[in-house]
Amino acid sequence: MGKEIVKKVCELLKDVRNQKPLVHNITNYVTVNDCANILLAMGVSPIMADDIKESADITKISDALVINIGTLNERTIESMIASGKKANELNIPVVFDPVGSGASEFRNSTTKRILEEVRIDVLRGNMSEIKFISGLESTTKGVDASESDMKSGNEEGINVAKNLANKLNCIVAITGVTDIVSDGKRTVMLANGTKMLANVTGTGCMTSALIGGACGATNDYFIGAIAGIVSMGIAGEISFEKSGEIGLGSFRVGIIDAISNMNSDVIINMVKVQEI
Amino acid sequence: MGKEIVKKVCELLKDVRNQKPLVHNITNYVTVNDCANILLAMGVSPIMADDIKESADITKISDALVINIGTLNERTIESMIASGKKANELNIPVVFDPVGSGASEFRNSTTKRILEEVRIDVLRGNMSEIKFISGLESTTKGVDASESDMKSGNEEGINVAKNLANKLNCIVAITGVTDIVSDGKRTVMLANGTKMLANVTGTGCMTSALIGGACGATNDYFIGAIAGIVSMGIAGEISFEKSGEIGLGSFRVGIIDAISNMNSDVIINMVKVQEI
Amino acid sequence: MGKEIVKKVCELLKDVRNQKPLVHNITNYVTVNDCANILLAMGVSPIMADDIKESADITKISDALVINIGTLNERTIESMIASGKKANELNIPVVFDPVGSGASEFRNSTTKRILEEVRIDVLRGNMSEIKFISGLESTTKGVDASESDMKSGNEEGINVAKNLANKLNCIVAITGVTDIVSDGKRTVMLANGTKMLANVTGTGCMTSALIGGACGATNDYFIGAIAGIVSMGIAGEISFEKSGEIGLGSFRVGIIDAISNMNSDVIINMVKVQEI
Repeated sequence: MGKEIVKKVCELLKDVRNQKPLVHNITNYVTVNDCANILLAMGVSPIMADDIKESADITKISDALVINIGTLNERTIESMIASGKKANELNIPVVFDPVGSGASEFRNSTTKRILEEVRIDVLRGNMSEIKFISGLESTTKGVDASESDMKSGNEEGINVAKNLANKLNCIVAITGVTDIVSDGKRTVMLANGTKMLANVTGTGCMTSALIGGACGATNDYFIGAIAGIVSMGIAGEISFEKSGEIGLGSFRVGIIDAISNMNSDVIINMVKVQEI
Repeated sequence: MGKEIVKKVCELLKDVRNQKPLVHNITNYVTVNDCANILLAMGVSPIMADDIKESADITKISDALVINIGTLNERTIESMIASGKKANELNIPVVFDPVGSGASEFRNSTTKRILEEVRIDVLRGNMSEIKFISGLESTTKGVDASESDMKSGNEEGINVAKNLANKLNCIVAITGVTDIVSDGKRTVMLANGTKMLANVTGTGCMTSALIGGACGATNDYFIGAIAGIVSMGIAGEISFEKSGEIGLGSFRVGIIDAISNMNSDVIINMVKVQEI
Repeated sequence: MGKEIVKKVCELLKDVRNQKPLVHNITNYVTVNDCANILLAMGVSPIMADDIKESADITKISDALVINIGTLNERTIESMIASGKKANELNIPVVFDPVGSGASEFRNSTTKRILEEVRIDVLRGNMSEIKFISGLESTTKGVDASESDMKSGNEEGINVAKNLANKLNCIVAITGVTDIVSDGKRTVMLANGTKMLANVTGTGCMTSALIGGACGATNDYFIGAIAGIVSMGIAGEISFEKSGEIGLGSFRVGIIDAISNMNSDVIINMVKVQEI
């Protein structure tokens, strides 16, 4: 089950290394370095540019755009919108990471505006963020999912992802203990990863970046989203095995190590994907 | 001596892991990733948000606020003030790290303004910064303490900390070879750490973040300040022992490793605290 | 050949550790932490400050200024100009890293403006950036050199560097598989490094920072540029030897380790310098 998907993921990740797509990130200043390094480790050429005077120009030469509102500020909202519209115009895939949606009115209204003005191809968030965007009751703990939302069963998560994917006409990815990816028709559950990933800042942002990297080398964004999430989950498991007991600093270094060594053999051996 | 304090520190650090407080950081873009990761390693949920349109909203849902002026800019000063006032209103502890005070008129006047408009609970800086704020003659070397100020004897440091604590009615922590923490009445000297900590960027910022994390789980900010400083000092010693000879990159990784493994046994074995 | 140069490089790097110059960086938020840490590892005291209200004040107390447009934004352009002019006034060396020149009109016009209004002492970029600034045909891939430009022969690179050095009356350094440094009269080729350096974000920025650190302790900026580039190249080789097979995360940590251990013996053993 899921064999066809795994094969496509493996091929896509090879294509990324061969094509070395250019991925434009408008993102936060907390985890931006990690996003750049994990994209390089994946074989992507990252570029960060957020001034309105160049953001659309940079998007124009890029193969994918990743928008992340982790440290949202007024200066860059217009850049996100301008880049998003340019990407839409040129059919460049747009990944949106609505970090902390639900935590402040500013993030909520900006998320709403981005979803209204930009056609998003992949929306990736934690359960609290995705429930909030779905208009469902959710509680958030800053930029982390709340414990009550994390206890949502997989069945609930599948419904939330599917419904929102249909509503927004895009791929919706909810990451957590189990990850759920849906395009509204096809839905998969991914079970790679380790709890320790939640104790390193930016593992969500990095997953969104990886999705952007993967989508930069394909038109099948459903597979692109799965490829990014599976890469991070497996990298987490490999690093946990090697460095989990040493501590969080070494574990974090090991994630980048594992992404830079990721290949089809590793994925085929370790991937845990289930089609619904 | 100091046994009661050590016991309280151990209990507090356990409480942090159990309560996982949310700590709002308005900080610089040089060391922000390190601050987020060290807070996660301590068991804290960090959030960074600095736009005036949301900063007070984020403070409102947080358990502590850390203000750091390491890369001060006009855009975020108002956010620092707004968040500080909101924290004061809701009795949320405020930690202030006046990075580079004394190095430019802009930092000096902003430090003055923050101290006037926000009630600070813990002020942590190096000897040059704290002397400058005290109105004493000091020389500064950018964001580092000057050599002449670092040679201030412990007796002078104790007086500086005590007097400023009484003047500002807050906890004052001077970190350096020996760390001094005073609430104006009680004063302790902490002797953990290694010189190598001065060769990694952000060890001061990270200490302030750890203090914020600790204060997010207690009302006893004197113990909170000690807990943060002791954690960093011991982590530095552990990492130095393990990686000091390998180099500064590995040493830096080891600091986060050690914070993530910090527990009562480690603290009781290694802590060097002296009540004055 | 190049023995005199190597001797001067070794002496300079010793002077840096003894003098601990203060180096002001106005740089991007992607790699700023790496720049701070590599400067500390070199023995430099880094300071980052980019607000117009203090940038010239900070430059004034510094021993070198590094301007990097990696995440260029309107807010800091004026700070770059003001700091650059202050540095010129006080004969403080200015290193300029025109990240991504050629990739957007905004970067192009800002690069032009900086070169017009500030006297640059060392200009360091990849082949695409330097060719673009020279007014030659170039293609760029975001912030990375394009493959076609990277295939420029050494002879072409030498001519480009020499001509631009004469035109701008400064040191021009082109870094790539082979690095070329020219002051218009003297030219050297440096052959240290490993391809893996291109897969870690900020190795270019860090090289510019190291050049700034070196120039902060000498008036011979030609040697300063060589010292910075040689340090990074050798650090890359040492880290590759030790951690290349482990992965990019460990390789990145090893670069800082190697810089912190850099000394004359290492340089004399490993340096590959050729005077033209």
